Amino acid sequence: MSVERKQDVIRLTASDKPLPDIHLSGLPQFEPGWVWLVGAGPGDPGLLTLHAVNALQQADCVVYDALVSEDILKLMKPDAERLYAGKRGGKPSWKQSDITDTLISLAKEGKRVLRLKGGDPFVFGRGGEEAQALVEQNIAIRIIPGISAGIGGLAYAGIPVTHRDVNHAVTFITGHLAGDSAAEKMDWAAISRGSPVIVIYMAMRKLPAISRLLREAGRRDNEPVAIVTHATTPRQKVLITTLGSAVNDVEAHGMEPPSIIVIGEVVYLQAILSWYQPS
Amino acid sequence: MSVERKQDVIRLTASDKPLPDIHLSGLPQFEPGWVWLVGAGPGDPGLLTLHAVNALQQADCVVYDALVSEDILKLMKPDAERLYAGKRGGKPSWKQSDITDTLISLAKEGKRVLRLKGGDPFVFGRGGEEAQALVEQNIAIRIIPGISAGIGGLAYAGIPVTHRDVNHAVTFITGHLAGDSAAEKMDWAAISRGSPVIVIYMAMRKLPAISRLLREAGRRDNEPVAIVTHATTPRQKVLITTLGSAVNDVEAHGMEPPSIIVIGEVVYLQAILSWYQPS
Repeated sequence: MSVERKQDVIRLTASDKPLPDIHLSGLPQFEPGWVWLVGAGPGDPGLLTLHAVNALQQADCVVYDALVSEDILKLMKPDAERLYAGKRGGKPSWKQSDITDTLISLAKEGKRVLRLKGGDPFVFGRGGEEAQALVEQNIAIRIIPGISAGIGGLAYAGIPVTHRDVNHAVTFITGHLAGDSAAEKMDWAAISRGSPVIVIYMAMRKLPAISRLLREAGRRDNEPVAIVTHATTPRQKVLITTLGSAVNDVEAHGMEPPSIIVIGEVVYLQAILSWYQPS
Repeated sequence: MSVERKQDVIRLTASDKPLPDIHLSGLPQFEPGWVWLVGAGPGDPGLLTLHAVNALQQADCVVYDALVSEDILKLMKPDAERLYAGKRGGKPSWKQSDITDTLISLAKEGKRVLRLKGGDPFVFGRGGEEAQALVEQNIAIRIIPGISAGIGGLAYAGIPVTHRDVNHAVTFITGHLAGDSAAEKMDWAAISRGSPVIVIYMAMRKLPAISRLLREAGRRDNEPVAIVTHATTPRQKVLITTLGSAVNDVEAHGMEPPSIIVIGEVVYLQAILSWYQPS
């Protein structure tokens, strides 16, 4: 496969047979002084969108998070600048204000600034806050959505987040404040009753609290739970357990973040639909 | 930009400067007799994933739905077969069993079968059912997630589905059975209480029932609502209204499906973050 961009035209060649030129007016030029907030997807570089690749090919600098892999960063221009905004070793990660200040000053220098986030920038990614801060400074932005781990990561574990026989509603929540009474914003009882399927981001460290809250809210001890770590990457691991056994099983199997957790009967489909063989 | 695939290697060239070869072991060969269930995203061809383009370049036949655009189908091999499984004019769309029977028989003929669905195949797309039917016939499958309209379509309207100040939970529901007492599977009261932000797929025709159900469940008349039609395409329209005025406003502005509807305070961000200019 070859893809060639020339203004708004993409030229594709499938091994030996060239295809007609294709007008993709959606693949824009990256103008100096703009910031593009881009979702890198859950890990597999094949889940990057064409817009994301187009952005990586043109950016002067890329400000990226912990969950963005080297295989994805390799798509940058060779002379582009990399700025790592995630946690590393014992060092603290950047504060949110450090990140927005950096994006603003790079844009004001006239750089093409790519803010690259794992998953989708608008799903528990603080992309909305970053976009607001940029717009307040009159910096032009573009949003490039990405595959979110709660959908695409679970698909790589063979788990559809919706199934006609199971659910017409699915709730995505962030688990990092679960059980923290001062910060808790979640009505666990209502969510438990309203959503047959619940997908939880950033849940691993709070699993004891989450498991307790959901059972107090009426979800069964033997309700099926899947925990997927490093989803869509060669390191992907899938643990099938129950709400009552999840905490022990996570420890017994040495599961480590990043994880995505799903609760509900769609988990039963994993036994049938599991298709991805991590290498 | 040029992208060339040769076994597991992708070669990229940014205008004049060639980049080192990149190993993308995630971009696989499409073997004969396999069915790949692929999400085409919400409409903008730039939101296709590399995996989806790779699939389109290799498929012998593509079975596609109503929401997949001609710009996307142009990425097929020139001699590949197209089968349209959606509604057209007065003719009824295929039954679900017609679709699965067709996928099965094409695969058994040894074809590389691409099942192409709008959005993501596992988000209200019946992809789980199709995958089950294929696996029962011992047909090998691969799932390629796509950008779901409820996330990516709303991002093109300048609306993040989550924002730290607004919500730590977002619920995605399908609206096509709303108010249909025989078929209704939704606990609207619980969803209304549990989720500050609710995203509804296939909701346009059922908007009167949805608006009533949410207000009966305690959501305010003046709660902000955004209705986005033809999201991410040149025909995108965004209507900002309230729960109490939505039904009248949709009629007054002649909004037509396909639509995505979002209820909650993230809608206020549209006034600040709106960035996409449909051509």
